[in-house]
Amino acid sequence: MRDVCIVGTGQVPVGEHWERSIRHLAHDAISAAMADAQIESADALYVGNMSSGPLSQQENLAALIADFCGLQGLEAIKAEAACASGGAALRMGFMAIASGIHDVVLVAGVEKMMDAMGSDVTAVLGMAADAEYEAIQGVSFTALNALLMQRYMYEYDVPDDGLACFSVNAHERGVHNPFAMFQHEISPVEYAAARMISSPLTMLDSSPVCDGAAALVLTSVNMAPSLGGRHRSDPVRILGSSISTDTLAVHDRKDPMYLAAVAMSTRKALEQAGMERECLDFCELHDAFSILSALSLEAMGYAARGTGWRLAETGRISLDGDVPISTQGGLKSRGHPIGATGIYQAVEAVNQLQGLGGRNQVPNASVGLIQNIGGSGASVISHILAS
Amino acid sequence: MRDVCIVGTGQVPVGEHWERSIRHLAHDAISAAMADAQIESADALYVGNMSSGPLSQQENLAALIADFCGLQGLEAIKAEAACASGGAALRMGFMAIASGIHDVVLVAGVEKMMDAMGSDVTAVLGMAADAEYEAIQGVSFTALNALLMQRYMYEYDVPDDGLACFSVNAHERGVHNPFAMFQHEISPVEYAAARMISSPLTMLDSSPVCDGAAALVLTSVNMAPSLGGRHRSDPVRILGSSISTDTLAVHDRKDPMYLAAVAMSTRKALEQAGMERECLDFCELHDAFSILSALSLEAMGYAARGTGWRLAETGRISLDGDVPISTQGGLKSRGHPIGATGIYQAVEAVNQLQGLGGRNQVPNASVGLIQNIGGSGASVISHILAS
Repeated sequence: MRDVCIVGTGQVPVGEHWERSIRHLAHDAISAAMADAQIESADALYVGNMSSGPLSQQENLAALIADFCGLQGLEAIKAEAACASGGAALRMGFMAIASGIHDVVLVAGVEKMMDAMGSDVTAVLGMAADAEYEAIQGVSFTALNALLMQRYMYEYDVPDDGLACFSVNAHERGVHNPFAMFQHEISPVEYAAARMISSPLTMLDSSPVCDGAAALVLTSVNMAPSLGGRHRSDPVRILGSSISTDTLAVHDRKDPMYLAAVAMSTRKALEQAGMERECLDFCELHDAFSILSALSLEAMGYAARGTGWRLAETGRISLDGDVPISTQGGLKSRGHPIGATGIYQAVEAVNQLQGLGGRNQVPNASVGLIQNIGGSGASVISHILAS
Repeated sequence: MRDVCIVGTGQVPVGEHWERSIRHLAHDAISAAMADAQIESADALYVGNMSSGPLSQQENLAALIADFCGLQGLEAIKAEAACASGGAALRMGFMAIASGIHDVVLVAGVEKMMDAMGSDVTAVLGMAADAEYEAIQGVSFTALNALLMQRYMYEYDVPDDGLACFSVNAHERGVHNPFAMFQHEISPVEYAAARMISSPLTMLDSSPVCDGAAALVLTSVNMAPSLGGRHRSDPVRILGSSISTDTLAVHDRKDPMYLAAVAMSTRKALEQAGMERECLDFCELHDAFSILSALSLEAMGYAARGTGWRLAETGRISLDGDVPISTQGGLKSRGHPIGATGIYQAVEAVNQLQGLGGRNQVPNASVGLIQNIGGSGASVISHILAS
């Protein structure tokens, strides 16, 4: 197996792109990544996306994007794993390079959620849950996470504002990320006053509906120097790549408070990288809802059961803490354009590892983990990146 | 790169499965493949599917199927490339084994088109075309192929019944395939009298809307003997695997009568296998519409431009011809459950190569090509299998 590295990144600002369709967003991110890598063609394109069918009436999405980018002919496949679709596309790119099948691969994530042509975005997001045993009962995806949050707060005696610092921290970082949807801070007072969506989960526990696209260029470590671009001499390497799954329906889990797939995926990625958790300088977690951050930190072993929320409260998740998360705003503040999120995480991690984190730079970052979750913990995809 | 082989196959009868949901269909095919390979677990599951979102309100599909099959924990990703989604999943499985990342991989294809929960199947199939430049004009996917057929018949002076033998041949084979949707013959007279869908394309030029699922177990050639099952001593190998793409919109092509991606994908797969076209004992083409068979045979080089239809008329596509196609009924008679089709093709090719083709056996078959097309020639995925 060949060693895999990232030699180009591109992203578009996350937000409401009413004037751009899904192909334009993907094109803009891919062009930026290709310019960054100084390449004009590639062997394959893997696209992470969940809902182009119901929301843009478009499937055969990867071929369409290849076509629109002027890359006709190349291999193209769309990867779907709900909110972890971006991570799944990265996994495919990793396999294609590691195997030696391809030398230069584009990996993109894109989601177009505005201008949904009459579809109900809430119903479409619910497709990440079990259609026949969860969604059919009328539970939305947000409501499922609210149930987890409710149970967590009850079980572990968490105060009403116990999860506030996850959102406050994310927004602090978003201020300094020009690609973030929300570039403003929020206060604990604003958190406490936020509009309720599904009790006890409020607007400020939740990542936004938005549009976005991000892209990467992958190659082998041996081939990187032969490409142009700023990464050629010292590309960020992918040391670990893993996917684990759990039951789709939350009620099917022996213990809904334990994200077993997070634990397994993290362990597998660390093993592959030959590392312990302590080697990680930061973790880009999947903070689609604040409760997911707490549960992820616990399943990863950073906190004992029921105490993950205290890591936020005590500042351990901030840039100078021992486990910085959401370093460019995370899903909460940068935004969560479903299938693009896993690729935004990778772009941000590359920047951190190259010292380009700006005001959000994690000091001396040399190894980072990015974790992308599909469904309420059903598909968990982890990658370990190192400079 | 490791050599890849198939050590288990499973399929469910193609048809109208009103009483089975998408998870049940996938489960039945996967269980059959696992029993055939005598395995109880696997490292990963790649699922080909186009439309579970709009038609079954279900995404995160691969994780759901892993869960429902009792395979929680394993890697799972859905691959989408419209009607070529099954071929795309096979491509992913090929990469996973070739790279050495995984040792035993499940590849499945599934599509549930009946009981579409209020969605319009015709509109969903149209998502394989360009939403903003084709479908939005009101052209259905069938109508796009009718336009190709109209142009072909005009350009090359093809008589009204010129393409009849593609459908007649497919139905002849379907009679002897217990998994085929249509197990009855059709006559040229019936073809001529068939109900018009979109002139000049009739019901008998067109593959049916249907449900189905098929599955494979892949491993490396070196590891195959260590598994149980009937394939262990002499597994079918995958010698070539390739994907090529073309413009999604038919009107964007310089020459709509030439399937450039078919030509390129075929050539790449043959090169990888180190073979000439003459080595192929049969070709499972993507005969979603009879016009696609004619155009595919021409792009592959079996016939000069405008003469592909004569290969059907002169019997060269039948079992004892020089290029047998649709040997178990093809998409026309076995049926075309979109994302499952590419895997049905593989299951049927394995049977041919192991001499298990029954009354449809191609004499002395040792090498076969399977080709899965997404959109009107936009995504073309070819695999070369050999005993």
